[in-house]
Amino acid sequence: MLLAKVVGTVVATRKEPTLDGLRFMLCKPVDETGKVGSSYVVAADAVGAGVGEIVMFATGSSARQTVQTNNRPCDAVIMAIVDNWETGGDFVYKKGESD
Amino acid sequence: MLLAKVVGTVVATRKEPTLDGLRFMLCKPVDETGKVGSSYVVAADAVGAGVGEIVMFATGSSARQTVQTNNRPCDAVIMAIVDNWETGGDFVYKKGESD
Amino acid sequence: MLLAKVVGTVVATRKEPTLDGLRFMLCKPVDETGKVGSSYVVAADAVGAGVGEIVMFATGSSARQTVQTNNRPCDAVIMAIVDNWETGGDFVYKKGESD
Amino acid sequence: MLLAKVVGTVVATRKEPTLDGLRFMLCKPVDETGKVGSSYVVAADAVGAGVGEIVMFATGSSARQTVQTNNRPCDAVIMAIVDNWETGGDFVYKKGESD
Amino acid sequence: MLLAKVVGTVVATRKEPTLDGLRFMLCKPVDETGKVGSSYVVAADAVGAGVGEIVMFATGSSARQTVQTNNRPCDAVIMAIVDNWETGGDFVYKKGESD
Repeated sequence: MLLAKVVGTVVATRKEPTLDGLRFMLCKPVDETGKVGSSYVVAADAVGAGVGEIVMFATGSSARQTVQTNNRPCDAVIMAIVDNWETGGDFVYKKGESD
Repeated sequence: MLLAKVVGTVVATRKEPTLDGLRFMLCKPVDETGKVGSSYVVAADAVGAGVGEIVMFATGSSARQTVQTNNRPCDAVIMAIVDNWETGGDFVYKKGESD
Repeated sequence: MLLAKVVGTVVATRKEPTLDGLRFMLCKPVDETGKVGSSYVVAADAVGAGVGEIVMFATGSSARQTVQTNNRPCDAVIMAIVDNWETGGDFVYKKGESD
Repeated sequence: MLLAKVVGTVVATRKEPTLDGLRFMLCKPVDETGKVGSSYVVAADAVGAGVGEIVMFATGSSARQTVQTNNRPCDAVIMAIVDNWETGGDFVYKKGESD
Repeated sequence: MLLAKVVGTVVATRKEPTLDGLRFMLCKPVDETGKVGSSYVVAADAVGAGVGEIVMFATGSSARQTVQTNNRPCDAVIMAIVDNWETGGDFVYKKGESD
């Protein structure tokens, strides 16, 4: 998994019918210091993530292991909203403080 | 998933028989500002996408989760035609206006 | 999928028994203008491709969705021989003319 | 698989329910000389790995082939704690000595 | 698949129990001219490969399509020992001669 910041939403009305109801979030991966990088991924939202939140996403077939994405043509899913992470005993990111 | 612009079509008559009838689209991924990048992917079309449209595509085993691509040797599929996306409350792309 | 030029063959007699009879082709991906790049992939041949031909290959689990590669430890397969592709209404490549 | 150093932990309370109880470790891949690189991956822990240890992780659908990760939206798993590796008959890394 | 040179072995006693008995080989991918590159992968050995040999490995779910790796958290497998490969009718590598 990678950590990412949710920066926007993507809307598509003409799509595979099985994708109806899924929210597609524009996510920018962050490095392990929390810095936003240059790449992006559009991930389906399985946990009610909002724009501005730091999340964790899974890709590939693992992205289909949620009720919302099962058997759907979806290769990236937000599967957790991050509370915090630490390295060397120090918090690098704490939700509500580092945002 | 990634966003991409459909820029062309690929024709192949000698192919895996199960691929008969699939349309193969030449797609150029765009970044989150809508700028076309240097890479490309050939994706099967599951939604009736046309050249010039901005689409979303899925890769890997997720590309086989459509009626058209199920059980076929296909690792990329266009699964949505994008209406718009926004970041920070502003539209980055709106179909029909940004094209 | 990506487009590639078949540039050679790989021979291996000591291998997973299920791979017996498969032909392994050395393929160099080309960009969307037909230019050969610096990377390569060894792909199993499912369509009778020959050295010098421009083909399309699929990777990952999708590479096992052919009779020849089903349930085998093979992560890339040539699934089509390309006739042509076009962008902007112009042919970029036509088999027999651009080779 | 790749070798990596476990450098931290990630905590997320709002997540896919099936992920409850999994520990998420922040891992920095190392090269074959043991040098820590610039990338990272968040991997689920299937073997009781601790911060500071050198581990091996698997990605993609293979990351779900453990009791802890089966059928879960998890695309990276620590599946071994490394004792040592050698090249050319010389130990490059020995647990407890090279750390 | 990619071609690689086996350069070493990795030992891990604390690991997923299903991995018992598997040998993990440190492999350095080579380019199509046989030159060793800068990356590496740790692959399970399904064919009795030895250090110094040129092999072919498969990744992802395809790495689990051998008796040794089936249903195990393993994302790379050596599935063939290479005898030779050629481009343009000339041998680039011949086992026993080019080593």
